[in-house]
Amino acid sequence: MKDNFCVIMGGGIGSRFWPFSRENKPKQFLDFFGTGRSLLQQTFDRFSQIIPTENIFIATNELYADLVKEQLPEITDSQILKEPTRRNTAPCIAYASYHIQAINPNANIVVTPADHLILQEQHFLKNIQTGLNFVSKFPSLLTLGVKPSRPETGYGYIQTKEGGKDNIQEVKAFTEKPNPELAQIFFESGDFFWNSGIFIWNVNVILDAFKLYLPDINVRLAQGIGLYNTPKEKEFINEVYPTCQNISIDYGIMEKADNVYMLVADFGWSDLGNWASVYDLTDKDEGKNAVLKCKSLFIESKDNLVTLADGKLAVVQGLDNYIVAESDNVLLICKRDEEQRIKQIVADVKMKYGEEYM
Amino acid sequence: MKDNFCVIMGGGIGSRFWPFSRENKPKQFLDFFGTGRSLLQQTFDRFSQIIPTENIFIATNELYADLVKEQLPEITDSQILKEPTRRNTAPCIAYASYHIQAINPNANIVVTPADHLILQEQHFLKNIQTGLNFVSKFPSLLTLGVKPSRPETGYGYIQTKEGGKDNIQEVKAFTEKPNPELAQIFFESGDFFWNSGIFIWNVNVILDAFKLYLPDINVRLAQGIGLYNTPKEKEFINEVYPTCQNISIDYGIMEKADNVYMLVADFGWSDLGNWASVYDLTDKDEGKNAVLKCKSLFIESKDNLVTLADGKLAVVQGLDNYIVAESDNVLLICKRDEEQRIKQIVADVKMKYGEEYM
Repeated sequence: MKDNFCVIMGGGIGSRFWPFSRENKPKQFLDFFGTGRSLLQQTFDRFSQIIPTENIFIATNELYADLVKEQLPEITDSQILKEPTRRNTAPCIAYASYHIQAINPNANIVVTPADHLILQEQHFLKNIQTGLNFVSKFPSLLTLGVKPSRPETGYGYIQTKEGGKDNIQEVKAFTEKPNPELAQIFFESGDFFWNSGIFIWNVNVILDAFKLYLPDINVRLAQGIGLYNTPKEKEFINEVYPTCQNISIDYGIMEKADNVYMLVADFGWSDLGNWASVYDLTDKDEGKNAVLKCKSLFIESKDNLVTLADGKLAVVQGLDNYIVAESDNVLLICKRDEEQRIKQIVADVKMKYGEEYM
Repeated sequence: MKDNFCVIMGGGIGSRFWPFSRENKPKQFLDFFGTGRSLLQQTFDRFSQIIPTENIFIATNELYADLVKEQLPEITDSQILKEPTRRNTAPCIAYASYHIQAINPNANIVVTPADHLILQEQHFLKNIQTGLNFVSKFPSLLTLGVKPSRPETGYGYIQTKEGGKDNIQEVKAFTEKPNPELAQIFFESGDFFWNSGIFIWNVNVILDAFKLYLPDINVRLAQGIGLYNTPKEKEFINEVYPTCQNISIDYGIMEKADNVYMLVADFGWSDLGNWASVYDLTDKDEGKNAVLKCKSLFIESKDNLVTLADGKLAVVQGLDNYIVAESDNVLLICKRDEEQRIKQIVADVKMKYGEEYM
């Protein structure tokens, strides 16, 4: 138990949920479904049931350190690993690994995004336990794969070799997001799983993989051995971290390593990657309107996704298939089929009005 | 000058602009076009240029007395004529007339709604002066008629006899709101004018008309002679006013009296009776989107009317011909062509959620 650690990665800034998410309060800090807890808080709550609270670290951009402290008053400052710049998942994981190695040189670590949704918590915790047991015995890089429930084109897939034990299978290949035809083939084959972005490994095994597959990142961050988990860590990281290559752990290590295994997860998972996934996960009325947080009255309207602030009322007449999202000083109305344009819309708003509505 | 008085009628509670207007802040108290002054304040500002401030009275429902004081700090409590219940324009005008008669038995009075828009103030003031001069010489009931600029079906019309002097014509008939065919005929004839709801008369002439055409209302309110403009007025009105018949001045007197004249008004007038009239009066972008108060970005969207709170941003993609109106705790999205349904929608909201969003 004391060897088990968790790194919650919460440094993202995605604009796909703007105006609900903002630069100064991105998705992981939001409470999408009105549960009273943000996605980050929910992630923390889940892991704190099986991992000692002091072994849970939040890796985030420096900008969000105060927000993390505010949302997780139960952790200490030293549990927030502050990235001075955005450098994707590989440098973040290398940094966290060196930091944790300095605390416990035999740590087993779960690495997880801060902003995913888990529906069946008990299944999830059982899966994580299984994974921690596995990596404590086998020097492997374990990833959690989700059995596809539809031919989703929005996720990367993991293909496994046949066989495997303890519901854990050897990985054959990681694949990028497929086109619809390929997604259909993946869905039907049974060998393909959604890449959840949740990883479990021993600290030495992942650092060995960095030495082998991302030696440049490793050399830079290995210079700090002796400084990690000391007052000198921050200065070192501020200097070296920005010089690291911007690369994902999937692309930099998981696609290349030969000791990659996958645990078949069965806990009801969504990366909440876009409004469509939020719509899918929300209860709908008879007109298939989904409402988050606010109150509503729909008249001759269907297939809409509406979210206003808590306690507000949306009255919608004669509208089909739109996203209506209001937060703070912005109201966005956008066709549901065109939500991929939100990113560009945000850029247009920034161009026209500057930072005011970011 | 000292014989000239004005009664601004501001007791309405219309729900056609909900959620922009609310039961506790109806249309006359709102600043539609972001001028910094509400419609009531604008009406007061206009008249105070030609009528002594102390001769301007606001007739309103008791509920709104505080709001009137707040918006017009320059008037005294005694200038607010409080109606204990809603009883349409005839009882309101009779009450105000008796009150003013007690102050000045030879008063000439302009009666005006609080919530109309006047575009050309100098023309307006000149028209009012002309009217006040006329009624000080001739014992007539003068109404202001607006030359129609379109075959509008939303207004009542006044038909005049041929001839007339000083741009003032004798009235042949008042007509209700016409159907589209009739409105076209009215528009083309040249003898028909929009009924602006602004009246000018000597206090004794209008009270004589009450004696003749609405004797029941007159008898009730005439009992208060001797009490008006004294500390006993309030108690008398609270007791008697609710017993008065609910009837409009048009229907009760103007349609029946034989001394009714009309002054042709040329000051750019709108009763702001619905969102369509607000849309017509607002500057539009190249996509014919009209925006009140807030900032906006339209993408593939046209013919919309959007109003959020000051300083907020509306981003609208792929939407045509809607009203998007947000105020305080309510957002309404409704087809522009179906705004006549707002009244029913408000009733539905009240049924579902009670007073919270009224």
